[in-house]
Amino acid sequence: MTEAAGAADGLRFSLHEIAAQLGGELIGAGAAQLVERVGPLEGASPTTISFLASARFRSQLTTSKAGCVIVAPAMRDEALARGATIVTPDPYLYFARLTQWWAQRTRRAETPGVHASAVVDPSAQVDPLASIGPLVVIEAGAAVGAGAVVGAHGFVGRGARVGADTRLAARVTLGAGCSIGARGIVHSGAVIGADGFGFAPTEGRWEKIEQLGAVRIGDDVEIGANTCIDRGALGDTVIEDGVKLDNLIQIGHNVRIGAYTAIAGCVGIAGSTSIGAHCTVGGGCGINGHITLADHVHITAFSAVGKSILKPGVYRGTFPLEENATWEKNAATLRNLHALRNRVRALETKTP
Amino acid sequence: MTEAAGAADGLRFSLHEIAAQLGGELIGAGAAQLVERVGPLEGASPTTISFLASARFRSQLTTSKAGCVIVAPAMRDEALARGATIVTPDPYLYFARLTQWWAQRTRRAETPGVHASAVVDPSAQVDPLASIGPLVVIEAGAAVGAGAVVGAHGFVGRGARVGADTRLAARVTLGAGCSIGARGIVHSGAVIGADGFGFAPTEGRWEKIEQLGAVRIGDDVEIGANTCIDRGALGDTVIEDGVKLDNLIQIGHNVRIGAYTAIAGCVGIAGSTSIGAHCTVGGGCGINGHITLADHVHITAFSAVGKSILKPGVYRGTFPLEENATWEKNAATLRNLHALRNRVRALETKTP
Amino acid sequence: MTEAAGAADGLRFSLHEIAAQLGGELIGAGAAQLVERVGPLEGASPTTISFLASARFRSQLTTSKAGCVIVAPAMRDEALARGATIVTPDPYLYFARLTQWWAQRTRRAETPGVHASAVVDPSAQVDPLASIGPLVVIEAGAAVGAGAVVGAHGFVGRGARVGADTRLAARVTLGAGCSIGARGIVHSGAVIGADGFGFAPTEGRWEKIEQLGAVRIGDDVEIGANTCIDRGALGDTVIEDGVKLDNLIQIGHNVRIGAYTAIAGCVGIAGSTSIGAHCTVGGGCGINGHITLADHVHITAFSAVGKSILKPGVYRGTFPLEENATWEKNAATLRNLHALRNRVRALETKTP
Repeated sequence: MTEAAGAADGLRFSLHEIAAQLGGELIGAGAAQLVERVGPLEGASPTTISFLASARFRSQLTTSKAGCVIVAPAMRDEALARGATIVTPDPYLYFARLTQWWAQRTRRAETPGVHASAVVDPSAQVDPLASIGPLVVIEAGAAVGAGAVVGAHGFVGRGARVGADTRLAARVTLGAGCSIGARGIVHSGAVIGADGFGFAPTEGRWEKIEQLGAVRIGDDVEIGANTCIDRGALGDTVIEDGVKLDNLIQIGHNVRIGAYTAIAGCVGIAGSTSIGAHCTVGGGCGINGHITLADHVHITAFSAVGKSILKPGVYRGTFPLEENATWEKNAATLRNLHALRNRVRALETKTP
Repeated sequence: MTEAAGAADGLRFSLHEIAAQLGGELIGAGAAQLVERVGPLEGASPTTISFLASARFRSQLTTSKAGCVIVAPAMRDEALARGATIVTPDPYLYFARLTQWWAQRTRRAETPGVHASAVVDPSAQVDPLASIGPLVVIEAGAAVGAGAVVGAHGFVGRGARVGADTRLAARVTLGAGCSIGARGIVHSGAVIGADGFGFAPTEGRWEKIEQLGAVRIGDDVEIGANTCIDRGALGDTVIEDGVKLDNLIQIGHNVRIGAYTAIAGCVGIAGSTSIGAHCTVGGGCGINGHITLADHVHITAFSAVGKSILKPGVYRGTFPLEENATWEKNAATLRNLHALRNRVRALETKTP
Repeated sequence: MTEAAGAADGLRFSLHEIAAQLGGELIGAGAAQLVERVGPLEGASPTTISFLASARFRSQLTTSKAGCVIVAPAMRDEALARGATIVTPDPYLYFARLTQWWAQRTRRAETPGVHASAVVDPSAQVDPLASIGPLVVIEAGAAVGAGAVVGAHGFVGRGARVGADTRLAARVTLGAGCSIGARGIVHSGAVIGADGFGFAPTEGRWEKIEQLGAVRIGDDVEIGANTCIDRGALGDTVIEDGVKLDNLIQIGHNVRIGAYTAIAGCVGIAGSTSIGAHCTVGGGCGINGHITLADHVHITAFSAVGKSILKPGVYRGTFPLEENATWEKNAATLRNLHALRNRVRALETKTP
């Protein structure tokens, strides 16, 4: 298996068209040519448009065969020496917008309308400009906005709401009474609105607390594959505007996630915790219930957060990886760490 | 986005009706009034019924606008001073039962019968009082009991069994030959009966061990969204009565989970491990294969359990979270912890 | 609930038939008998065929009631003394093949053809020997090979490809343009080809990087339930031949996993990381993005891998589990570990 890049099907675009739409200064030899894929500098061909996001990868600029490279003003001369160049203040952002532009031109648009095999309750309000895929189920009182897409095998429960231009990929579950705003993306297997995990102990058993709340999701939110967001016990679980959630994340009941916070895969957030705006949480982290993270808190991957963090900053709690033999020795000492501290204290007492 | 609470649709219930059904002593001014939501003390309105589970939240009692508060006998006078009160020995348990009572009255009951779009094998035994949702698949020889619900897009494999009054939410997979008892709840995306992870190494490759067992689940079990319970290799994976599993949990083949054990989200349990009854496992934990946890063992969130635990108690293995700069320094020392111990030992030898 | 073993439905097989097909030397009293289940030594009955994979479990050999035991040459005499025996160089491998042989004879074969309820685009190429289950969706330009099975509620996106004899269990999503080779197995809920998690930051928000690549999966790959493999941003995410992935694993965009590597449940691998061939990764591990693991690297369960590992070996980074009181004391010291090292250093300076 060898490397592929881009999404072309024989489609070619002119650099002039790209610069006309996305801005930037298009200069250098070959600026009149056509490109047929977006790709990294390494492995690029003369029909690839590529980008240099950081001066760290500068050496790749010289060796790459890319037909055009998007660079920052500081790299202008260096890029120009090799051929067609788009100069822009933030090449990575330009690249992001280029992928969007590219996807719009190379991907099939969904056709508005309801697939014949879908099961849509007569009382559901499906906008005529929405697209409801095959074998979808939409229950009573649900609403799907203009330009929204509900992919194959999707489920929109009683009274749930899908905002305009929001896309649910194949096989997404949006539970009864839950809502997502406009321009969202939800990936396959995501479950929005399962019951939160709530029980009262009684005589060695667990009595279920019915989860009477819902999930409310703002605009411009992306939710990854097989991610779960539980409905609130009382009140709602809330995901604010612009939040980005990766795959296989668990969000407990009554959690609130502040606007523009991004959370990487395999994170678990226990119930009733409030995470601020503009936070980032690395992959595999666990965050305790009933705590608060301030705005602009950044948690490094694979950390456990047990207490509230009220001061912005970078926090970490990852156990260092070692070769197994080293780990064995260190772990043995770690199990007696408190005793070691006492031994040091004893020595300090004895040493003048 | 602002806070919501409860699940009312204009429905109102009298406090007398609640106390008549659920018990407790209803006293105080306003005991004749109607409530339209269940909610926390904070943010409650005069039509909210709320509860005080712990004396820790006592201060909220005075300030809350709740129309009625459920309290323990010790808080009786304090609650009475503010208005309608239900006095009961265990307010949290009362609250749990109130949510159940509430949900029964405010949620639509499933209609018995098989939706026209479901694909049900003629040899399957579906009780006339069961409800089979749209686009469900039920294979040959499967059985679904009275009062059971198989939600939209559900899959019940060959010979699988769903007990009476058990509810499978939308999109649940119950594999061939697997069974779940009575009064269970399984949330969307759960996969019961995928193959366990079993391979014999041979010449640098992996030879599959077909998983010939099944999954057997007792009564009153709840299983969270996107949780996976693998079928046994030989013999069965067993989940005993009253077990509660949160979302995104992985249960390996031939695991046994004892009665009334509760496991929080994102936990992984490797194959052939046996967990006792009345245990709790915090979110994000990993439990090794082929080990045993005794009854009444409690594992704190985000711990890795490598060995059997035969003594009841609370166990923990979470790396402490720090600001990143502190972590960097501590982790550097941790990597040489064994050497540090040797240095202390050398000092002890030298110090009289 | 008591233990069950095997998958028989009254079917019985002769030991001679087994040895004729799978090899090994069949000897001892009772070699002419029939067996009706494969099971562990413990709990076996006279109609069980069992195996002794390691001399460690030797004591079970004497006490087991199994009708036939598969053993290595070193255990030949010991096994023979108790009855029918199959002698083979690698009993565990023999057992694996026996389970395959058994499954073929006891499980219903899928019938080739397309179920009437499936929604298959006319431009999709479905081999006449493939089996397409109920309520499956196959989009335009997709291809499904001979002997392949797409289980109930499966989704095969535009231009996606399923190789010959590959089995997708019920409810698998294979996204547009993604491919899986021959003889693969994908379990329920797996999502292949959701978008990778890619955003460019801009003015406190996140600009989506459309994921223009796909997922390419080799031959003989097994993928667990609810596991996610994201499509590449540019270029593809690649899973090489013979890789085995357990349940609830997250594979980020542009990851490459080398041939015959096996990864246990609940592992997260961040984007653009390359894992070598013949590696093993224990359950619950997290692997950072943009790093490289050499061939034959083995990571112990629940470790976080932050940096490249270029040397084969066993690596570990699990925090040791303790009783909670011990943990509290050790963790307190751990938070000041660097200070402790400085105190030791000070003592060393003072001590002659």
